[in-house]
Amino acid sequence: MTATLPQAHLSQPEPFRWAGVDLLDYKEADGTFRSVSRQTLTDAEHGQGVSLRYFEVGPGGHTTLEKHEHTHVVIPIRGAGSCLVGTEVFELKLHDVVFVPSWGWHQFRAADDEPLGFLCSVTSDRDRPVRPSADELAVLNSVPTVADFIRY
Amino acid sequence: MTATLPQAHLSQPEPFRWAGVDLLDYKEADGTFRSVSRQTLTDAEHGQGVSLRYFEVGPGGHTTLEKHEHTHVVIPIRGAGSCLVGTEVFELKLHDVVFVPSWGWHQFRAADDEPLGFLCSVTSDRDRPVRPSADELAVLNSVPTVADFIRY
Repeated sequence: MTATLPQAHLSQPEPFRWAGVDLLDYKEADGTFRSVSRQTLTDAEHGQGVSLRYFEVGPGGHTTLEKHEHTHVVIPIRGAGSCLVGTEVFELKLHDVVFVPSWGWHQFRAADDEPLGFLCSVTSDRDRPVRPSADELAVLNSVPTVADFIRY
Repeated sequence: MTATLPQAHLSQPEPFRWAGVDLLDYKEADGTFRSVSRQTLTDAEHGQGVSLRYFEVGPGGHTTLEKHEHTHVVIPIRGAGSCLVGTEVFELKLHDVVFVPSWGWHQFRAADDEPLGFLCSVTSDRDRPVRPSADELAVLNSVPTVADFIRY
């Protein structure tokens, strides 16, 4: 337990910017993503074993194509975009629920003319993502809709 | 583990109604709440130990005034309203983050002319809520802003 409880109410001085929450880079720049920010809204100290983050992908941007053992639950709350889960591509509407199972490939892309902002829940303890090998990329690229979608 | 994985993408045939998700009563009618529905969007089978529900409180309605050991993380995504956490009352804007700590009193109310719809995360295993005793109600009612807010 931490010494102080989290705040009861995180307000937004401007839309999608929560008071006292740092606006961070998505991750260390490695050329695998484009135009993504991250804010951590809740974490282990909230007592549920999960962390809730808000990611915002700028117009034309995308997250990293990756997979890992831990799961994701994703809910878009701003803008428009699409995603890959496994070998399926989905257009996203606000408040759709996306589930990324263990070891499922996934990538999120914003529309060309709108950002895509989404809540993403993960377990607080989790493994590191891995990126596709050349062989795995060849398999992904063998599916035309996936080949059209992925950026890496 | 369940035999089948949850769907990768829950779409909404109409806003705030997720495909294949039952629209349920908030809980068994007991006179402690008014005009509240519940949809369970994710649960233990999503592998995070938490359940994410969508509650919608109709205009003028409210949830039950209660407390429990488990915590809540609540994010409004529709309409307008306000809430009690502990002995504080907050006006809610869309996408604010509300944290209800262990054993914190809480109640959510919709505006008189708008619904209040919110995501609420809880651990999948959790204790049953308890309602205030007469003595506890007297303490709550000793705070004017709380006395004005609560419905029971």
